[in-house]
Amino acid sequence: MILINGHPENRIEITDRGLQYGDGLFETIAYRNGQLEYFAQHLSRLVEGCQRLKIAFPVAQQQSLTKEVNAVCRQLNNDAVIKIMVTRGSGGRGYRYQTDMQTSRIISTHSMPIYPDSHQSGITVRLCQQRLAINPTLAGIKHLNRLEQVLARNEWQDDSIVEGLMLDYQDQLIEGTMSNVFLVQNNQLSTAELSGSGIAGIMRQQLIKIADRLSIPLHITSLTIDDLKSADEVFVCNSLIGIWPVTRITDLDMHYSHGPLTQTLQRALTSQNRNA
Amino acid sequence: MILINGHPENRIEITDRGLQYGDGLFETIAYRNGQLEYFAQHLSRLVEGCQRLKIAFPVAQQQSLTKEVNAVCRQLNNDAVIKIMVTRGSGGRGYRYQTDMQTSRIISTHSMPIYPDSHQSGITVRLCQQRLAINPTLAGIKHLNRLEQVLARNEWQDDSIVEGLMLDYQDQLIEGTMSNVFLVQNNQLSTAELSGSGIAGIMRQQLIKIADRLSIPLHITSLTIDDLKSADEVFVCNSLIGIWPVTRITDLDMHYSHGPLTQTLQRALTSQNRNA
Repeated sequence: MILINGHPENRIEITDRGLQYGDGLFETIAYRNGQLEYFAQHLSRLVEGCQRLKIAFPVAQQQSLTKEVNAVCRQLNNDAVIKIMVTRGSGGRGYRYQTDMQTSRIISTHSMPIYPDSHQSGITVRLCQQRLAINPTLAGIKHLNRLEQVLARNEWQDDSIVEGLMLDYQDQLIEGTMSNVFLVQNNQLSTAELSGSGIAGIMRQQLIKIADRLSIPLHITSLTIDDLKSADEVFVCNSLIGIWPVTRITDLDMHYSHGPLTQTLQRALTSQNRNA
Repeated sequence: MILINGHPENRIEITDRGLQYGDGLFETIAYRNGQLEYFAQHLSRLVEGCQRLKIAFPVAQQQSLTKEVNAVCRQLNNDAVIKIMVTRGSGGRGYRYQTDMQTSRIISTHSMPIYPDSHQSGITVRLCQQRLAINPTLAGIKHLNRLEQVLARNEWQDDSIVEGLMLDYQDQLIEGTMSNVFLVQNNQLSTAELSGSGIAGIMRQQLIKIADRLSIPLHITSLTIDDLKSADEVFVCNSLIGIWPVTRITDLDMHYSHGPLTQTLQRALTSQNRNA
């Protein structure tokens, strides 16, 4: 099902700046067990992204979006992925936009991907060749300029490799192609700081909160391949998959166990109210 | 007028990866005096861009595109801008693409912008705050991930400022928001090398050829603000505007004349067969 600005539609004008320039943002939300998970957090990130890109997304539009998402969910009989795109809307040719443009809200539903249960106890990942460019203005937000992720994810076709880790052009470990990454070193958690590149994931944000609640020391810091090599545990996370422990990194020939701190966080996440 | 894969349409499926991820490329071509300018060169850059992004764009599709563009031009009674977009096509959610996807060809016509004649003898430009990220994989090609240009172009609303110059995050002068930039120093031309960021414009390419033909020394090199400060002449160029001399850079308080080398190149460009 697809709604564009509240209307059932599956096509958008080619003049939409989302297509023309990737001039917009998106969110990918899990609808599971009849519940839209972390919707408030997704909406909040979307609003922040609009502010960063100066896309008009006033409260009235946020309320319309919320209503539309709820209406879409009421039609669902199964778990699903809800994808939201917000673009600057349709405008003339050229990078300059008009300030009175009508923001586009696009909501689409997708089948929930089915992953092997074994992913919960360990996946194999690789190190991508494609790097992330450093661009503080665009870092952290989930904008529609995603060629780096497209190129990175399509470096491999081997289905036994589940995710790819990405470095930036200064050799900092940032994230996975579709996930954020955490390391455990000496019973302390660390995850990449994302002021230069990367997407600040909602699940990453939740895990930072959980770590705080459980008094697990956590460092939001710069990470390198050396940190991966010295890590006791590694895991990736996102809103759809939750936490997947990394038990092997092919390109580094590193192996890790499905360790105790990762298991603690998985349990904490499972018992958490995701509607909060 | 808009053609999508040869059919008159003005909307595209929201599942198109051009919208989802900016997973595609574009060209902006001048149709002037009944002639499609530098079409072969634009097509060639588009093909190279597809190769770089691994978007399938075989000869048969290139031929279809050429036919469609010609058909569109036959309908035109006035000068116009022909914009071509090529995207990876419609696919499922997620960065991974299927190799059997059907590339989308989108052709749209736009009115030719009317600029003051005075731009031919000098414009005022500014220096943008927004920097260009360094990403060799994406540098040079005209892909659809253009948020940097959108943010840069919308830093100013003052119409007396015609263009903005952009540096990369390593303080190298790269290009304008919609143009390439050339400097004249000691009767020699220089323009930024674009291995890290920027778009290798068709007009830039033509001017490099013209300089060679006229035996004007030209350096494709790294440039900085200091080079701007020591330049005798500065100009910007693109396929629609040709060459615009820069006579003032506001943020640097620099002034330049509409100098002899710039004028030589403008004359050479005017007399050139743009269908070649």
